[in-house]
Amino acid sequence: MAAEKQIITLLTDFGTSDSYVAQMKGVILSRSRDVVLVDITHEVPAQDILTAAMILADACSSFPPGTIHVIVVDPGVGSERRILCLSAARQLFLAPDNGVLELIYRQHKTGALVEVTSEWYFSEGISNTFHGRDIFASVAGHLATGVRPSRLGPKVTDPVRIEVPQVALSDNQVEGAVVYIDRFGNLVTNIERAHLAQVFQGVKSSQFLLTIGSVQIKGLSRTYAEAPAGGPMCLLGSSGRLEISVPGGSAQASLHASRGDPVVVHRL
Amino acid sequence: MAAEKQIITLLTDFGTSDSYVAQMKGVILSRSRDVVLVDITHEVPAQDILTAAMILADACSSFPPGTIHVIVVDPGVGSERRILCLSAARQLFLAPDNGVLELIYRQHKTGALVEVTSEWYFSEGISNTFHGRDIFASVAGHLATGVRPSRLGPKVTDPVRIEVPQVALSDNQVEGAVVYIDRFGNLVTNIERAHLAQVFQGVKSSQFLLTIGSVQIKGLSRTYAEAPAGGPMCLLGSSGRLEISVPGGSAQASLHASRGDPVVVHRL
Amino acid sequence: MAAEKQIITLLTDFGTSDSYVAQMKGVILSRSRDVVLVDITHEVPAQDILTAAMILADACSSFPPGTIHVIVVDPGVGSERRILCLSAARQLFLAPDNGVLELIYRQHKTGALVEVTSEWYFSEGISNTFHGRDIFASVAGHLATGVRPSRLGPKVTDPVRIEVPQVALSDNQVEGAVVYIDRFGNLVTNIERAHLAQVFQGVKSSQFLLTIGSVQIKGLSRTYAEAPAGGPMCLLGSSGRLEISVPGGSAQASLHASRGDPVVVHRL
Repeated sequence: MAAEKQIITLLTDFGTSDSYVAQMKGVILSRSRDVVLVDITHEVPAQDILTAAMILADACSSFPPGTIHVIVVDPGVGSERRILCLSAARQLFLAPDNGVLELIYRQHKTGALVEVTSEWYFSEGISNTFHGRDIFASVAGHLATGVRPSRLGPKVTDPVRIEVPQVALSDNQVEGAVVYIDRFGNLVTNIERAHLAQVFQGVKSSQFLLTIGSVQIKGLSRTYAEAPAGGPMCLLGSSGRLEISVPGGSAQASLHASRGDPVVVHRL
Repeated sequence: MAAEKQIITLLTDFGTSDSYVAQMKGVILSRSRDVVLVDITHEVPAQDILTAAMILADACSSFPPGTIHVIVVDPGVGSERRILCLSAARQLFLAPDNGVLELIYRQHKTGALVEVTSEWYFSEGISNTFHGRDIFASVAGHLATGVRPSRLGPKVTDPVRIEVPQVALSDNQVEGAVVYIDRFGNLVTNIERAHLAQVFQGVKSSQFLLTIGSVQIKGLSRTYAEAPAGGPMCLLGSSGRLEISVPGGSAQASLHASRGDPVVVHRL
Repeated sequence: MAAEKQIITLLTDFGTSDSYVAQMKGVILSRSRDVVLVDITHEVPAQDILTAAMILADACSSFPPGTIHVIVVDPGVGSERRILCLSAARQLFLAPDNGVLELIYRQHKTGALVEVTSEWYFSEGISNTFHGRDIFASVAGHLATGVRPSRLGPKVTDPVRIEVPQVALSDNQVEGAVVYIDRFGNLVTNIERAHLAQVFQGVKSSQFLLTIGSVQIKGLSRTYAEAPAGGPMCLLGSSGRLEISVPGGSAQASLHASRGDPVVVHRL
């Protein structure tokens, strides 16, 4: 009986106009051809670790157990920064030790965490500038053939951790921030359904008042279709977080918003 | 004997800088790993149903019978708009009921058309904003495992239809319009080989005179290589429709053309 | 026992906003479903044969033996230009005869080279404008099913050759040029490790002096991390060629550099 195919995802800041991503795929396929390769995205702004962490956290939960996620947003390539392999949420994450796994550490029960040191699983003649191809892709290909993560290197207990914007809860308000802006100009915040539920027990959705900059939005909509024409609205988006949106337009443009902008939710 | 792998195509306006497309793929692969996933494009202008319909009609005929096409250009997500599954041209089309299937209805013998209502095939805990992931991808994954379309929901006889630009034929001219502009700036019209054949029986290709705006193009070329250097030319393009092109340049830029511009073909 | 899946790569200037690439994939999958499709890139500047040649040469060596590379950067489509199938480096290359294989001819021991003439392997009713779909993709799909290249057509001994920028070696200097600029603004030159080794035997890397325009860079770094903050650096990049880089920035922008700019390496 054929074993089930392994899924390997790729998340990088390489863009798609050069052949860097393809070179990684070539190396993976040289190790194991029985894989399904999925691009998460390669358009992470160059070296933007926090954005990559956000995208990874959102995307990984749509994939089945056993998926191998390869993340190469790696400003420290060629330096002494470590490469990690993390078991979490019944998936594997192969990433530089620079904080890109921060949200996985926070949101999931994590299993083994090892440093990838065993050169046995690297490409021969590795470059100093393209570990994505010479180490990450090669190791991922080996993992897909059934190599156990524990074979990759020693356990790690002190991964690099990074600051992520926090949500402040008080008796009558939730204060967070815009943490991600998607290509539609939707403003995704770090305020989750659970935060609202905790502070505003029993409050009707029409009673919410959201403030961002000088703009106030009354009521929490359920769908884009409920929005007042042309105006901004807020709703719990597909990742379970509060989003500010202008249906048919761009909330980013309309509200002149940027990542990091504070967002406060009150009760009317 | 292994069953043949199912092909699932994706056509959206999601772009590729966020992880939305990848989330859809994760859900599909969670349902069935024995699929080939093909991106038609994710660069449809946001919510541009007609452009998506054009791209779909052009692309689908290159795929083999049994292909499952998933189209998520869906301004009405979260509203009461229906989701449809259409059998046509020995392929399946999963799309919102907003007219994006218009050209499939017109160009192919259509089979069963059902509304997708059976939540059994949806993801658990569906969002109000991302049916692409929670319904379309999940249902497509189930279809790939062999679920019959008739299991998805009740028959539909009144799908939403949309206006598409028409071609007017008379005794000595064919009048159409630019309906699509590709990334090379080629102006694709809705005038098909059959339209020209009907009006201009026995006319030599050198005898055609095409007018767009204030520009006249004499003769219908067979290939780009036949074009006068630097000038605009017209020919029957890869989709079987009349196209206006500037080889090595952009007809869109040279002719200041836009989608919707009228195009008339006379006999010299 | 199942045969190993064939890998087919695609390298075009089609972009990804139209469905041209997807149409090619549909045709390939119509011929053989047991393939892995990999996009090298579709963002080659329109009709830029030399850039495509560079990207292909860099990318192909990461792929395993047996890989079928399909290159469609084809300004002569529809003219009398030939289509070639080359065996080299234990891989197959299907490309227009316009010089896009130049670097493969130079860098690898080449095997059989044939013109693709046997219409038996083309799509029915081929267009004059989209041989990528109607010939290249169809032939690639047939190759993946095991058709021998020698079946495609007669041997060719006079493929089109193109000029590529040369490296000039003298007793105490190596002179080359910028031949490729990647999306990070790294300036990739045609100067290879072997060129430097030949001229500067025994010279320490700190003793190199690189000149580009009015800028001088002292020392050859091993990694991006060794760079002086904010300043330009040079190192041997992932393709084994000398690159000029501004870590965290763009060398292209900082140095106002363009493809073709001369680059000279001296000994201090």
